[in-house]
Amino acid sequence: MAAIQAIKVAAICGSLRKASFNRGLIRSAIELCNESIEGMQIEHVDISPLPLLNTDLEVNGVYPPAVESFRSKILAADSILFASPENNYSFSAPLKNAIDWASRHPNVWADKPAAIVSAGGGFGGGRSQYHLRQVGVFLDLHFINNPELFVQAFQPPRKFDDEGNLIDLEIKERLKKVLLSLQAFTLRIQKKI
Amino acid sequence: MAAIQAIKVAAICGSLRKASFNRGLIRSAIELCNESIEGMQIEHVDISPLPLLNTDLEVNGVYPPAVESFRSKILAADSILFASPENNYSFSAPLKNAIDWASRHPNVWADKPAAIVSAGGGFGGGRSQYHLRQVGVFLDLHFINNPELFVQAFQPPRKFDDEGNLIDLEIKERLKKVLLSLQAFTLRIQKKI
Amino acid sequence: MAAIQAIKVAAICGSLRKASFNRGLIRSAIELCNESIEGMQIEHVDISPLPLLNTDLEVNGVYPPAVESFRSKILAADSILFASPENNYSFSAPLKNAIDWASRHPNVWADKPAAIVSAGGGFGGGRSQYHLRQVGVFLDLHFINNPELFVQAFQPPRKFDDEGNLIDLEIKERLKKVLLSLQAFTLRIQKKI
Amino acid sequence: MAAIQAIKVAAICGSLRKASFNRGLIRSAIELCNESIEGMQIEHVDISPLPLLNTDLEVNGVYPPAVESFRSKILAADSILFASPENNYSFSAPLKNAIDWASRHPNVWADKPAAIVSAGGGFGGGRSQYHLRQVGVFLDLHFINNPELFVQAFQPPRKFDDEGNLIDLEIKERLKKVLLSLQAFTLRIQKKI
Repeated sequence: MAAIQAIKVAAICGSLRKASFNRGLIRSAIELCNESIEGMQIEHVDISPLPLLNTDLEVNGVYPPAVESFRSKILAADSILFASPENNYSFSAPLKNAIDWASRHPNVWADKPAAIVSAGGGFGGGRSQYHLRQVGVFLDLHFINNPELFVQAFQPPRKFDDEGNLIDLEIKERLKKVLLSLQAFTLRIQKKI
Repeated sequence: MAAIQAIKVAAICGSLRKASFNRGLIRSAIELCNESIEGMQIEHVDISPLPLLNTDLEVNGVYPPAVESFRSKILAADSILFASPENNYSFSAPLKNAIDWASRHPNVWADKPAAIVSAGGGFGGGRSQYHLRQVGVFLDLHFINNPELFVQAFQPPRKFDDEGNLIDLEIKERLKKVLLSLQAFTLRIQKKI
Repeated sequence: MAAIQAIKVAAICGSLRKASFNRGLIRSAIELCNESIEGMQIEHVDISPLPLLNTDLEVNGVYPPAVESFRSKILAADSILFASPENNYSFSAPLKNAIDWASRHPNVWADKPAAIVSAGGGFGGGRSQYHLRQVGVFLDLHFINNPELFVQAFQPPRKFDDEGNLIDLEIKERLKKVLLSLQAFTLRIQKKI
Repeated sequence: MAAIQAIKVAAICGSLRKASFNRGLIRSAIELCNESIEGMQIEHVDISPLPLLNTDLEVNGVYPPAVESFRSKILAADSILFASPENNYSFSAPLKNAIDWASRHPNVWADKPAAIVSAGGGFGGGRSQYHLRQVGVFLDLHFINNPELFVQAFQPPRKFDDEGNLIDLEIKERLKKVLLSLQAFTLRIQKKI
């Protein structure tokens, strides 16, 4: 009897800040997955080495090495987890930069299921998520509809420690539900269930 | 009798590509302004030297030199002209990057009138413009409502030459109307008329 | 050998105007489906009898008769085809009205695949489609990503006759591709393929 | 010495529900204005008599009586206050219906300053506000950028009583700041200051 192969999730954080809350959400997602979710593996894919998008850097269909490396990791993933900070009522520039590089021909996001989580003030990153969903239409991503996770990072009780680690158990539980929903939708879209 | 001081417009192009159509729109706007609009000066402000946003680069309230230079040019402007390419159904990463750097404390966009023009396939950059308008709420920009300019760059007749220069006279006329509307709204907001 | 059951699509037009182009798109979709798509049936569901949304009209969990009738047709459908006019840069009031009634507890849109087509000036209804996609997140609709269809109704050659019938063969071909994509995605989501 | 004429604000509530929180925001705005804001008068304009938008109801440039009456009230106002409930991640159907009727030729919203307030679950109506701002581009409304008011109606302490009256003093104070900002922006746009 063949074992079911674990689905592979590429996790991307839109903030380059060391103590980023959104980076903390991804660390927590990886821990939760390792501890308590069978059949799914999450790998954090670093976007900080990518140059600012300039299609003049694309020569004879070859991208800069950091871009090629990033694109191959996205291509290899079954689905995507975005941790999307909200900057000025939309997604961050580093996140859009990574998205746009990987969308260049051939678009390596195509037909992959995806989920978004975010942490921040106000709506907990909410406005960034809806702009990202519109971007996903052209990328041909299939976003899960629910649950959504918006972590209002500055509301008591404290959600993150000084290193940006998620320390709130209720949020961890909600994050786990996002992961389970992404897993189920990935299997459904891949017709494995 | 004191001469009326010309309003100063900072023009920003969201594409770093050398032959960018959107960069061409700004070149054309500067020409139109010099030739036929009194009382307005447009200066192109280059965003290519800015590092990718990372707030860890902000030390004791001081930003990297390229950021400080960019911020001071925005601060000195009366109003803003964005040339906003559409990448994957939203604005470009380099444009968002510039916007976010200049929004850091103190937000140098605050209370300035602004206009957006764009060129591209499909809706001529249209989807980028509405995302940009939402960003402008938090930046406290006052966008003109009309006319809007979406240049469908790949529809005949040819709109741009190989260097990205705008060569279509009808589009030039419409671009000029955007500039006149921005000028009028700037004077109105500044209570100079 | 059991015959595969045809998927049932509920088609909704956001305009109540008799000669509506969007209504014409639905008539054309029904014809195309009957003539040349096996395994799919499209039924137009009229939204004009619905009262303006007022949750005070909901008494003891019972909705007005026109609402109950509409809700039961949506519930019975496998997937949804929206023909969404753009009014003032968003969807129409009658369309939102129908959507909101059918979202009342229990939400009868939940987990259904969907597609949007539109006709209009400017972007051919495009701005309405992206607002509708955001609404779909809460409704738990699964929209196809492509192809998108925006019919620029006032560009030559003539797209619709005076009764709002689609007369452009190339648009018909593109409309058919939307229907085939919706059919394929419905089967995929339902795990029938 | 001539008295400065008070600016007239038309207030519109997007919910038809009797105990609507958003209707309560408008009642509270009117009270605050009467008690403590000089030079501004707010009148609630009821949208419930309007028929569902159907441009076939427009005959020889004449609209149904309820529409004509609504349009004349909007035309007479100096600026607009929207109380915009969020239904399914966007504005309500009755609100869009009123907006679309008053946008018919000639568009009576044109060039008026406006503000939006909202109450609801989740983001306190936030998603409806950004869709409404996009609609405002075509209407040619000039929205204030700040402060924004999103009342999270179901968070403790209690914000509204059973009749939908606003009972939270801190929210009243924030609502008053919205009104003062709208007043100041109206005077600025009208060049009266």
